[in-house]
Amino acid sequence: MKACEGQIGRVFVLRLEDGDVVPGCIERFAEEKGISVGHAVLVGGIGGGEVVVGPRDSEERPPQPMLLSVDGAHEVVGVGVLAPNEDGKPVLHIHASLGRSGQTMTGCLRPGVTTWLVGEVILYEITGVDVARVRDEESGFELLEVEERGKD
Amino acid sequence: MKACEGQIGRVFVLRLEDGDVVPGCIERFAEEKGISVGHAVLVGGIGGGEVVVGPRDSEERPPQPMLLSVDGAHEVVGVGVLAPNEDGKPVLHIHASLGRSGQTMTGCLRPGVTTWLVGEVILYEITGVDVARVRDEESGFELLEVEERGKD
Amino acid sequence: MKACEGQIGRVFVLRLEDGDVVPGCIERFAEEKGISVGHAVLVGGIGGGEVVVGPRDSEERPPQPMLLSVDGAHEVVGVGVLAPNEDGKPVLHIHASLGRSGQTMTGCLRPGVTTWLVGEVILYEITGVDVARVRDEESGFELLEVEERGKD
Repeated sequence: MKACEGQIGRVFVLRLEDGDVVPGCIERFAEEKGISVGHAVLVGGIGGGEVVVGPRDSEERPPQPMLLSVDGAHEVVGVGVLAPNEDGKPVLHIHASLGRSGQTMTGCLRPGVTTWLVGEVILYEITGVDVARVRDEESGFELLEVEERGKD
Repeated sequence: MKACEGQIGRVFVLRLEDGDVVPGCIERFAEEKGISVGHAVLVGGIGGGEVVVGPRDSEERPPQPMLLSVDGAHEVVGVGVLAPNEDGKPVLHIHASLGRSGQTMTGCLRPGVTTWLVGEVILYEITGVDVARVRDEESGFELLEVEERGKD
Repeated sequence: MKACEGQIGRVFVLRLEDGDVVPGCIERFAEEKGISVGHAVLVGGIGGGEVVVGPRDSEERPPQPMLLSVDGAHEVVGVGVLAPNEDGKPVLHIHASLGRSGQTMTGCLRPGVTTWLVGEVILYEITGVDVARVRDEESGFELLEVEERGKD
């Protein structure tokens, strides 16, 4: 485990509108506002798009993602971590549970999902930390790297 | 998307007791304490009540909610956004995943669910934002409206 | 319901690495840093371990936990509340939804689950509150107790 310490900065309340695509719309907002690192929560409806629901094989490298389509309006609850990639663009790694009619799929919203009717987001800025998403050769993922200060 | 900026205010740690009904008990607490806008997380057990698990038909307006009963003690993880309705009363829009025996239902706790044994809630007050839940004619829902300041 | 009021303290961004066991690794970090009370969110992958997926019988006391094994890499979204037990050690009560291939199990990570590839954690310290996990005779659980100040 690696860790770094920061503080809470600004807090934003976002209203997503029907058709807004997560996580893209939150990432663009973060970029406009100069939010580099943060934490987001999402409560609302999702009407379409695709979710990564795990790697096909847990041992294979790079992992091949399994994708499922969202069919029909789902109730969503999600949590994400925002951090800049190597180009300095804020990337929101957000996982969520999407439920409909008692069935739930849980996964990563990276491929993009579409807001149904309304989405409510709280976005916390975290300042004073040195973190980035850096491409990992083996997995092919942009993994969160954390700079521990005052070490060595 | 609409957005507004605020700050973190007070933070509350709540212990829900067996039989406490969510979201009502958290809304009453918010009202007593004068918390208008906020963010809540819920970790604990749920033993009864009903959950909205999506609209019956994704296109129909107003949407007809599908409800499922919670039968037996479930493990719950939930996230909610608190905002005042048009009467100024704080309304908690909270979505949660409820699991039992490897099955999970995810939905909105609006109809009310009952705490089983214990519920742990962190409630963050968010100050300096101008948001409200306003009744939308088409959907019949009280949708979050966000006042963007300094625009136009 | 019982409640107490505090403030946000330090904020930590944690990168969990492949094989790190939750919640133990977060609890050890909290102890090292002197974080007594807090709130954590978890986004990432889980590759093994066990999850408590409810009590076998909702009425029986003490409740007998049902456990399910995590088989294969799952996408995880979790939320936890950190509070000290009677020995003053920080204990993280974290519930999460674990998804794979469209199936989701939701439960308590107390028995320990293993990070697959990466876990991202935001840990908020909450200061100024008087809370503890105290063993409850009837349930056998360490239940969160909250000291309400200025009462009576």
